[in-house]
Amino acid sequence: MSERSTAGFAGRRVLITGGLGFIGSSLAIELVRLGAHVTVLDSLLPEYGGNRFNVEPVRDRLDINICDMRDQHSLEILVQGQDLIFHLAGQVSHGDSMRDPQLDLAVNCVSSMNLVEACRRRNPGARLVYTSTRQVYGVPQKLPVTEDHPALPVDVNGINKLAAEYYHLLYDRTYDLKSVVLRLTNTYGPRQQIRNNRQGFIGIFLRQALKGEGIKIFGSGQQVRDFNYVDDVVQALLLAATTDACFGKVYNLGAPVYHPVLEMVQMLHELTGVPFETVPFPDDRKLIDIGDYYGDYSRFAAATQWQPTVGLREGLARSLDFFRTHSKEYWA
Amino acid sequence: MSERSTAGFAGRRVLITGGLGFIGSSLAIELVRLGAHVTVLDSLLPEYGGNRFNVEPVRDRLDINICDMRDQHSLEILVQGQDLIFHLAGQVSHGDSMRDPQLDLAVNCVSSMNLVEACRRRNPGARLVYTSTRQVYGVPQKLPVTEDHPALPVDVNGINKLAAEYYHLLYDRTYDLKSVVLRLTNTYGPRQQIRNNRQGFIGIFLRQALKGEGIKIFGSGQQVRDFNYVDDVVQALLLAATTDACFGKVYNLGAPVYHPVLEMVQMLHELTGVPFETVPFPDDRKLIDIGDYYGDYSRFAAATQWQPTVGLREGLARSLDFFRTHSKEYWA
Repeated sequence: MSERSTAGFAGRRVLITGGLGFIGSSLAIELVRLGAHVTVLDSLLPEYGGNRFNVEPVRDRLDINICDMRDQHSLEILVQGQDLIFHLAGQVSHGDSMRDPQLDLAVNCVSSMNLVEACRRRNPGARLVYTSTRQVYGVPQKLPVTEDHPALPVDVNGINKLAAEYYHLLYDRTYDLKSVVLRLTNTYGPRQQIRNNRQGFIGIFLRQALKGEGIKIFGSGQQVRDFNYVDDVVQALLLAATTDACFGKVYNLGAPVYHPVLEMVQMLHELTGVPFETVPFPDDRKLIDIGDYYGDYSRFAAATQWQPTVGLREGLARSLDFFRTHSKEYWA
Repeated sequence: MSERSTAGFAGRRVLITGGLGFIGSSLAIELVRLGAHVTVLDSLLPEYGGNRFNVEPVRDRLDINICDMRDQHSLEILVQGQDLIFHLAGQVSHGDSMRDPQLDLAVNCVSSMNLVEACRRRNPGARLVYTSTRQVYGVPQKLPVTEDHPALPVDVNGINKLAAEYYHLLYDRTYDLKSVVLRLTNTYGPRQQIRNNRQGFIGIFLRQALKGEGIKIFGSGQQVRDFNYVDDVVQALLLAATTDACFGKVYNLGAPVYHPVLEMVQMLHELTGVPFETVPFPDDRKLIDIGDYYGDYSRFAAATQWQPTVGLREGLARSLDFFRTHSKEYWA
C-alpha cells in the first residue's frame, strides 16, 4: 500500500453508495481503518450483492443507511456534510440489463442523476468518484483499449453506465462539482457476490470451485481478460479521490498481465481440484460477448502512481480462503 | 421532392411520436398526403411544442392519441400493427435540461427505452427512425463534424439523446429491430414552437421578427450554423425509413451552405425590418454554448441521395408567411 493513498483520510466524512456491496464494503473497511467517518448507503435490493455481513469487521465503526437512490429526497439529505462520495451503487449484470432494461436505467441513470443533482444543490464542494465499467467500450477494435477507444456498448448496462459517466463529467465541467470516473475491468475478491450469477464469470467460477461443481467455460476459453484484485481497486479509488489532477477525467483500471479465461480456470483447478470443460456459448450470452479485452491503464498510473500489486493466482487463493472461512454468508 | 421518397407509403401504417410537435406534424401531413394511415402520439406536455393546430390541414385523416411515453402499457398497445415508427417525441431545450435534468432523463431516456422495449415485445417487425441531435457532439473539435466525431455533450439533453440513440442501435443489432438514427441540426419552419424560447434561437428570432421586437444576438454573431428547412428534414425522415442500408446506423443531416448567425438575422431584418444588436452571452448560456458548428451529411446523402433544397432566405420567408397567416395559433 503506498504512503500516498493512505494519507489524508483521518477525520474525513465519506459516503459510499452501494457500500454494502462487494467493492463498496471493501472500500468502507479500508476507510474506517484509515480513520474516516464512513456512511454506507445501500438499497439492499435482493440479489444485487448488498450484504450486511460484508462490513462485519467494522460494524460498530460506520453508519449504515438503507436507501434507494431513486429516492431523491433522502439522497439530498445524505450527501450533506460529506467530504468524499464514492458512487458504487448500481446494477452490474449484463444479462439482467437486457432482461429488465428499465430497471437498469432507473438504477444506473436515474440514481446517478439524482446523486449529482443532490450534490449540486446541497453539497457542491464534495468530491465524487464514480465507478464505471469497461463494458462501455463494447467489442474492442484495438488492444489494449485506451480511454479514447470509441464507446459502442453491446448491452443496456454499458449504455446506462456511459450516460452516468457523462452526468458526472458534465457536472464537473459545468458546476465545478469535482468528479472522476474510473472504468473498472474484471474485479474479484473477498465479499464478491458469488451466490448467484449476477457479478460476472469470476464469481460463478469461484462458487463452482468452492462447491466442487464442474466449471463450464463458454467458448474456447482463449478469450483474454485483465483481472484486478479488490484491494488494488480500493487503492485506486482512494488515489482517484485525493489526486486533484484526476477530476473531470475518465480513467481505465487494468492489470500489468492479462490471462486467457482458461488459464484462470486452470489456476482454480490447481487451487481446488475443481474439474472444468469448455462448452458452446449460449445464444443470449453470445449476443453480448465482447471477445478479447484488456485495458491500458497507463494514464491513471501516470496520474496517481497506482499499480496493481496482487497477481491473479495469489488473488484467487486469498479469495478462496475468505469464502471457505465464510461459506454460509456467501455461497453454502 | 424526389420520386423515391414519395413512393411506398400508400396504405402503410405509421406511428409518429411527438406527432403534434413541429417536425412530427410536418411529417404527419406529408405522410397523409402520400396515403399512409397515420397515428400521431403526443403527450401535449405544456410548452413543449405539441399543438393540435399543427395537424389542422389533415385533422380528419389521421388519428390523434394523447399518451405520455413514460406510460409503458399504452405504448405496448400503440406500437402494434405499425409498419413504421418515427420517434420524434422528446425534450429538446438545452436550458430546460439543465434546469430539470430528471425530467429530461425521463422524457428522453425512459420514453425511448419504453419504445424499443414495446417494439421488441409487441412489434419486432417495425422499422424505427429516431431523431437525435447534433448536440451529442458538444464542442466541435474539427469542422465539418462527421458522425465519427467524439461525443462529448455539453448539456444533459445531449447526454440523454445520446443514450437514446444507443438504445435504438443496440436493439437493432441485438434483436434485429430495424432502427436508424438521424442527428438533426438547426431545423426551422412552419409549425415550429416559437411562442416560448424552448425550441432554439431560430424560433426566438422568428418571434422577435414577427413582433417587431429587437433581436438580441448572444456574442459576436459570427458563430456559424447549418440550417435545415423542415420540409427537407421530412424528406430525410421518409428516405431513412425506406432505405434498408440505413438501418443500424447513425447519420448527420446538414446543409450545403452554412451561415454566421448574424447573417441569418440580417436576412430576417431584410425580410421584416426588425432591428437587431449583439449582446454579451448570459452566463448560463455561455456554459453550454458550442461555438461554430456545421455537419458533414455526405454519408446520408450517399446512402439516400437526400439533398436539402430550400435555402435559408427562402425558408425564412416561407416561415414568416406561415406564421403571419396563423399568428394567433403560434405567437400573437
